[in-house]
Amino acid sequence: MKIVLLGAGNVATSLGIALVKAQHEVLQVYSRTISSAQCLANSIGAKAINAVALLSEEADVYLIAIKDNAVAALLEKLPDRLSHKIFAHTGGTLPMEVFKGQCLHYGVVYPLQTFSRSIALDFKEIPIFVEASDERTLSDLIELSQTISTRVEPLSSHKRIYLHLSAVWACNFVNHCYTIASDVLESQALPFDVLRPLISETANKAMRVPPYLAQTGPAVRKDTQTMEKHIKLLEYAPELQQLYKMLSDSIDSHHDKLLKKERI
Amino acid sequence: MKIVLLGAGNVATSLGIALVKAQHEVLQVYSRTISSAQCLANSIGAKAINAVALLSEEADVYLIAIKDNAVAALLEKLPDRLSHKIFAHTGGTLPMEVFKGQCLHYGVVYPLQTFSRSIALDFKEIPIFVEASDERTLSDLIELSQTISTRVEPLSSHKRIYLHLSAVWACNFVNHCYTIASDVLESQALPFDVLRPLISETANKAMRVPPYLAQTGPAVRKDTQTMEKHIKLLEYAPELQQLYKMLSDSIDSHHDKLLKKERI
Repeated sequence: MKIVLLGAGNVATSLGIALVKAQHEVLQVYSRTISSAQCLANSIGAKAINAVALLSEEADVYLIAIKDNAVAALLEKLPDRLSHKIFAHTGGTLPMEVFKGQCLHYGVVYPLQTFSRSIALDFKEIPIFVEASDERTLSDLIELSQTISTRVEPLSSHKRIYLHLSAVWACNFVNHCYTIASDVLESQALPFDVLRPLISETANKAMRVPPYLAQTGPAVRKDTQTMEKHIKLLEYAPELQQLYKMLSDSIDSHHDKLLKKERI
Repeated sequence: MKIVLLGAGNVATSLGIALVKAQHEVLQVYSRTISSAQCLANSIGAKAINAVALLSEEADVYLIAIKDNAVAALLEKLPDRLSHKIFAHTGGTLPMEVFKGQCLHYGVVYPLQTFSRSIALDFKEIPIFVEASDERTLSDLIELSQTISTRVEPLSSHKRIYLHLSAVWACNFVNHCYTIASDVLESQALPFDVLRPLISETANKAMRVPPYLAQTGPAVRKDTQTMEKHIKLLEYAPELQQLYKMLSDSIDSHHDKLLKKERI
């Protein structure tokens, strides 16, 4: 297919590379900042533009991968000559209805992964959730998605927002916990490297058993002595002390609801 | 070596199995609850006891893997006939000084991992941090640890407590985030399975780049619109709403300190 990418951030970059690898042609990369557009466009043989008026009419699908809160304003600026084309955004939380009144054929292509500009990922394993305004558009977007991933499923806007919320917990907040762990180690000149087997086993275990069954540590053991010592060590950052307490309380109240013997 | 294990929980179980696999002999398993002692003892060919008076004099090393706040009381009950033996505890936060006045030769053998009773782990990759009262004991405990792991290092009590704190963030709090993600998905009848590639990439990325460089998501993008929607979805659990806000604020303030362009 012929694609136009609107956006040049982490998602647009990863998607652009995967699309070209799957033999699609990316005609243009649009970004408000021409240098960002140029950077991605160069790497995937596309043309960089920074004005919607310059959007090509030649593409089959126009994929929008920009900040959620910038999508509506972008759609308002779309030239009428593109109104019969297929538009899709890639956001986790933005409802499909954002397109209503702006385009005729539209949808959502939501790849569930954490993307970094500089890390090329194998898209094949990444689940992609698709939704569309009509059957024909849905089947076109599913077909497109299936060329880059083996795990493509239709999903409503309503369920997608919950999926995105779960991803914030399982990825964004998890990564922030890694960051705090790394800071704690750095303060003692200990390498982050020592946590590798622990991080890896914690993630792997969640694949094998429901995570609530795998909970370990002072909070679930109600080991207040250890928790108090830890909170004292975090004295230099009252914000982290509060976060430590709140996470521990949450673990405690979550597990009080479960029988202890259920844990493995 | 001949070993006595005091404790029959997750750590004692994993350690007992690894020790026997490395050709050591576990003579006894002590637990206040005889059925717990029996369960572990059976699986590693040891004798179960539930009174310290019954502790054998035949062992070289007595490994204590019980709750931190129960160790001091246990040590007070130790029969004098064992005072010349090597005792070591396996806790992350308990200082080595807990042994002072109770034993002559003592130390700490701290394996940095999350242990579950029912999941047998390959100990070889697990870092073990060792500390001891004297050179001779240190070298004995290092030697013992090296028979089960390839990553054994001496570490002071002071640094060990920071290490343990970092492990709480990187494992216990991370796992709780997985649990919350799992609950969110369950509420929409979505399988936890869809998060596998995301969880695995998030953990893998932390091995390749410093985690603060890998932060993604609405908080670091300052996407308040998305965050507000997510907080609304968590209406059913005010405690989780507060936790979501606090984690997002913490990401925001952490990353304000860094230049955005530093992120990958």
